[in-house]
Amino acid sequence: MVIVMSEHASEDQVEKVIAALTQKGYDAHRSTGSTRTVIGVVGTSRTPLDPREFEIMPGVQEVVKITEPYKLAGRTFQQEDTVIRLGDVAIGGRNIVMMAGPCAVESEKQLDIIASSVRRYGARILRGGAFKPRTSPYAFQGLGEEGLGHLRKVADRHGLLVITEVMDTNQVDLVAAHSDILQVGARNMQNFNLLKELGRQRKPVMLKRGLSATIQEWLLSAEYIMAGGNRDVMLCERGIRTFENFTRNTMDISAIPIIKKLSHLPIIADPSHGTGLRDKVIPMARAAVAAGADGIMVEVHHEPEAALSDGPQSIYPEQFAELMAQLRIIAPAIGRTI
Amino acid sequence: MVIVMSEHASEDQVEKVIAALTQKGYDAHRSTGSTRTVIGVVGTSRTPLDPREFEIMPGVQEVVKITEPYKLAGRTFQQEDTVIRLGDVAIGGRNIVMMAGPCAVESEKQLDIIASSVRRYGARILRGGAFKPRTSPYAFQGLGEEGLGHLRKVADRHGLLVITEVMDTNQVDLVAAHSDILQVGARNMQNFNLLKELGRQRKPVMLKRGLSATIQEWLLSAEYIMAGGNRDVMLCERGIRTFENFTRNTMDISAIPIIKKLSHLPIIADPSHGTGLRDKVIPMARAAVAAGADGIMVEVHHEPEAALSDGPQSIYPEQFAELMAQLRIIAPAIGRTI
Amino acid sequence: MVIVMSEHASEDQVEKVIAALTQKGYDAHRSTGSTRTVIGVVGTSRTPLDPREFEIMPGVQEVVKITEPYKLAGRTFQQEDTVIRLGDVAIGGRNIVMMAGPCAVESEKQLDIIASSVRRYGARILRGGAFKPRTSPYAFQGLGEEGLGHLRKVADRHGLLVITEVMDTNQVDLVAAHSDILQVGARNMQNFNLLKELGRQRKPVMLKRGLSATIQEWLLSAEYIMAGGNRDVMLCERGIRTFENFTRNTMDISAIPIIKKLSHLPIIADPSHGTGLRDKVIPMARAAVAAGADGIMVEVHHEPEAALSDGPQSIYPEQFAELMAQLRIIAPAIGRTI
Amino acid sequence: MVIVMSEHASEDQVEKVIAALTQKGYDAHRSTGSTRTVIGVVGTSRTPLDPREFEIMPGVQEVVKITEPYKLAGRTFQQEDTVIRLGDVAIGGRNIVMMAGPCAVESEKQLDIIASSVRRYGARILRGGAFKPRTSPYAFQGLGEEGLGHLRKVADRHGLLVITEVMDTNQVDLVAAHSDILQVGARNMQNFNLLKELGRQRKPVMLKRGLSATIQEWLLSAEYIMAGGNRDVMLCERGIRTFENFTRNTMDISAIPIIKKLSHLPIIADPSHGTGLRDKVIPMARAAVAAGADGIMVEVHHEPEAALSDGPQSIYPEQFAELMAQLRIIAPAIGRTI
Repeated sequence: MVIVMSEHASEDQVEKVIAALTQKGYDAHRSTGSTRTVIGVVGTSRTPLDPREFEIMPGVQEVVKITEPYKLAGRTFQQEDTVIRLGDVAIGGRNIVMMAGPCAVESEKQLDIIASSVRRYGARILRGGAFKPRTSPYAFQGLGEEGLGHLRKVADRHGLLVITEVMDTNQVDLVAAHSDILQVGARNMQNFNLLKELGRQRKPVMLKRGLSATIQEWLLSAEYIMAGGNRDVMLCERGIRTFENFTRNTMDISAIPIIKKLSHLPIIADPSHGTGLRDKVIPMARAAVAAGADGIMVEVHHEPEAALSDGPQSIYPEQFAELMAQLRIIAPAIGRTI
Repeated sequence: MVIVMSEHASEDQVEKVIAALTQKGYDAHRSTGSTRTVIGVVGTSRTPLDPREFEIMPGVQEVVKITEPYKLAGRTFQQEDTVIRLGDVAIGGRNIVMMAGPCAVESEKQLDIIASSVRRYGARILRGGAFKPRTSPYAFQGLGEEGLGHLRKVADRHGLLVITEVMDTNQVDLVAAHSDILQVGARNMQNFNLLKELGRQRKPVMLKRGLSATIQEWLLSAEYIMAGGNRDVMLCERGIRTFENFTRNTMDISAIPIIKKLSHLPIIADPSHGTGLRDKVIPMARAAVAAGADGIMVEVHHEPEAALSDGPQSIYPEQFAELMAQLRIIAPAIGRTI
Repeated sequence: MVIVMSEHASEDQVEKVIAALTQKGYDAHRSTGSTRTVIGVVGTSRTPLDPREFEIMPGVQEVVKITEPYKLAGRTFQQEDTVIRLGDVAIGGRNIVMMAGPCAVESEKQLDIIASSVRRYGARILRGGAFKPRTSPYAFQGLGEEGLGHLRKVADRHGLLVITEVMDTNQVDLVAAHSDILQVGARNMQNFNLLKELGRQRKPVMLKRGLSATIQEWLLSAEYIMAGGNRDVMLCERGIRTFENFTRNTMDISAIPIIKKLSHLPIIADPSHGTGLRDKVIPMARAAVAAGADGIMVEVHHEPEAALSDGPQSIYPEQFAELMAQLRIIAPAIGRTI
Repeated sequence: MVIVMSEHASEDQVEKVIAALTQKGYDAHRSTGSTRTVIGVVGTSRTPLDPREFEIMPGVQEVVKITEPYKLAGRTFQQEDTVIRLGDVAIGGRNIVMMAGPCAVESEKQLDIIASSVRRYGARILRGGAFKPRTSPYAFQGLGEEGLGHLRKVADRHGLLVITEVMDTNQVDLVAAHSDILQVGARNMQNFNLLKELGRQRKPVMLKRGLSATIQEWLLSAEYIMAGGNRDVMLCERGIRTFENFTRNTMDISAIPIIKKLSHLPIIADPSHGTGLRDKVIPMARAAVAAGADGIMVEVHHEPEAALSDGPQSIYPEQFAELMAQLRIIAPAIGRTI
């Protein structure tokens, strides 16, 4: 932290700031220039510092936090990329991983048709919601435990892994019993009790970015899981909320290279939720891979017009095949395979 | 819902849209003008309609949702204001209600000093966090159950009611045993499992607006609680996330008259979280009352520089007294008392 | 500026940063702590520093700008409030100033009816657009010079001052010949050529905040005008663009106390553009005064349903009278008159 | 436009709405369902309709605009892509066009070094600012006319075309005398006088998206230029302002496929301004091409650490070469060449 005193700050005010720092167990380094004094805070202590505490002291002009508040999730802590291994699938390595499936599990048969086709075209992980977070209490809320059973059975039949969302601390054990990866939805990114519970699990977690979460808050939520002992965390960009509402969300493709620089965790892109519009899913999936994503999660449905949830953002199996063909051309541009 | 066909839409395309509507149990009213056809959907059905399902049909230019998706929370459903009564305190009536106290409960003694002064100056409800949602896993997480005990004991001693946050379905019974009002924090506004659980409670709930929640999503979250059977819901504006980061959040004062028009539920304003800066709290509290808020929730601390959480946005007890004096002048301008 | 080196920065990297600063004419103050080095930049030089230049040097973790980039507009430069005097009207003093009139000047008769009523109820300044910035090229673009003539004549008849918008450097002399205050619209807040031209004028300027302008950018645009020699600048908050689109814009009421702290310039609030909805104008005008605004600009029309522009956000003359009555109750709460 | 009456609307209220439409020269198509009446407005008239005029009529619940307000810029008006031809360079065709050069023209020598290298690696258009819009009045404002001369001379020497920014109506003739493409900067996207002036020119215009401009507003600004008679307009996505400030702006890659669908105009991407950070420029340029951009504009500098403006977002000539190599792999994935 750096504390910048105002031009008119008195010597007494400067000393009071230094005393407050010392009392909290920090070292203060004072630089006095021709116009103002700057105080650098370079130690560490058990008491975390809230910059605003100093901002309101007399004579202080500005306070700036300088250290990353996350640790385990940062590149400073771990230089090499985290690669999460599940059987012969590696997430975060040279190969780009495809996760595909319907928005919601509707029936075993629906799931089987979709799983069969996405497996054929190259997906390795089957997605599908059993518990659905819906904005309206009157919308379809998912098949629940029955849906989890369908996911497990169908995925095993086709040699796929399962990823599905867990919405509440009470559901964690149940979902973990059926799924290979536990997904945290955007609306739960700061459900801290849920994050703590997932930190106690021994299954990989995919943490979606909240609609209005900064990169730093997102990494801090990953830190919650990691601090609990679970290091197998992957992040998923799925669009942020902005003034532009032509698309459901604004997919922040730049988050991909940013995460790659700040963190060692794998980064997945979800263009289905990122755009909400079928005809934008494929261009944005291509863009995400070109920007360096470690994987793509995409909603696929053989009859999207009859889907119980998010049909308009689901692509057809044939479109998924076409996307795979395009990604196989793009991946080598950045030294990846798919 | 209204479906607008494009200028070049064929008769066949129009008929397919109408057929899709009929199949889902809706009536379609067709208007064909000189340049295009518009299809009005005016019935209701068990199957909710997703506008995007039609947007992607050939020949469709645009689809517009026209009915409010919430019902119990809307003015259409209930014309007169909801007034929530707790003993001799009425929230949503002519009198403006003040909720005050520290951000976090730190000790019984701390709470007692603050409660005593805010009660003297006119607060009726004591706020204080026992379970604290913190962005970082390394920050103070609250005293938990011990803090709840302090809240109840101190509030009873001073003739105050208690409001405190519940963060997880597992905590609902515990918090309800100690608190008069159950608060849902901004980060949990779309924690749907928690909302459903609160719908089963018989204690009033205060639902804070999410950082990136639209007015409509906020009312739909209220609808989740009300649909479960609990009609005593009040809303709380506490700032939204925008590009401007001089303040912690941008307090959306206009949400106050908007909620008053769309809904019959009481609306509270929280200028402490809305601004994050002590010297902005009082002007924004005045603004909220002038705009029509039914109550103010404000963080007060006798030693904010030593507070374990959010000290910089807490006002001193004397400032709270000064605020009350100003609000007593402003309230009559809109026919209210305080 | 403060440059924070990363934990792993080498001595050589630290020295290169210091050398780069020295070369640009700045003094570098080095603080080396147990984990990292912080370099304070405390001098001034003719070469302005771009923090990003240092951010990309090897070994640098973060660079933080610490000094306000504006000078003439800041409280540091001038402690006492700027009061702009135009005849017996003072803007920025104890009295709150009301500016009212139609969105667009439509005819002398229309303007006369409106001017007469707003003068009667307490307005001192007549607003009205002669040149209208319209999003669509096909919308009414204003009466132009003819409208300026109406404004001057009608204002003089009723003892009012004139404020109207200037959209282009070519129009400045023409508008200045008719208007007492020159208004810069939100879309032109960063039309730097226009700002420079206004800096050469000797008439007060009202600078509206851009839809996506930060407080700092807004003050820097004021600085452009002031640096040219024109110190009579007032600011006008009129809403920012956010994800919430229930209102046309999100009026940032907190900008009022922020500007009051950072700057000595008067701050006006425009709830008509800030909300875009007639029934929200009055609550937001009350809120702005309660938050400390020096004046209110409001659109008034006797027949808003027939207005050529922005009728839906114009209030009726009787509503303006009602607003004045409410503001007279509120103003004393903060030691103001109206 | 569609007008949705509220459930409790009276017959009289419905008729008044229809009368108001008729009076303005529109046809009203009424659909009355079991719960409410919907009025479709399907004609056209000289008087444009402001939805808010109807929103405030008694009994009206909601009003929805349904037709695109732009015409010349839309796909409905022109199905085939606009291809802008300048000598042997075609913008908007099968080939992706590269525009490269320094942020600001600093000297003929600087420009020559950069132009020489970007030409060698495949750029066809030389960018460089002579008039620079700067947030601060104290920052370098560009070389002005001298810079224009350098641009023309250096471009001719290397067989490049010139694109440079015009900031004011007064500068249009001067800039047009030296430049092949006239660029409108983000801050001037709604400088309507400038847009009108450019409509009278016979040189292609590149219109950058404003920081807070919706897709529709952007197309309406293009419409201003086209309505004046100049059909050679290309659009440029360069990032929008959001809550995320890790990057200078949030580059909205999804705008590329959206523009491709709504409009026939070419779409260029500027990852230098879109991210503001050198190491994000290349991933985002790849993403833009993968998403379907017709061209890339990128800042290149041989000594970015000494650049007078935006050095930190400029890439080195060798990085430009590397980018070209990657784009040559990616382009065929979408049937393009480079």
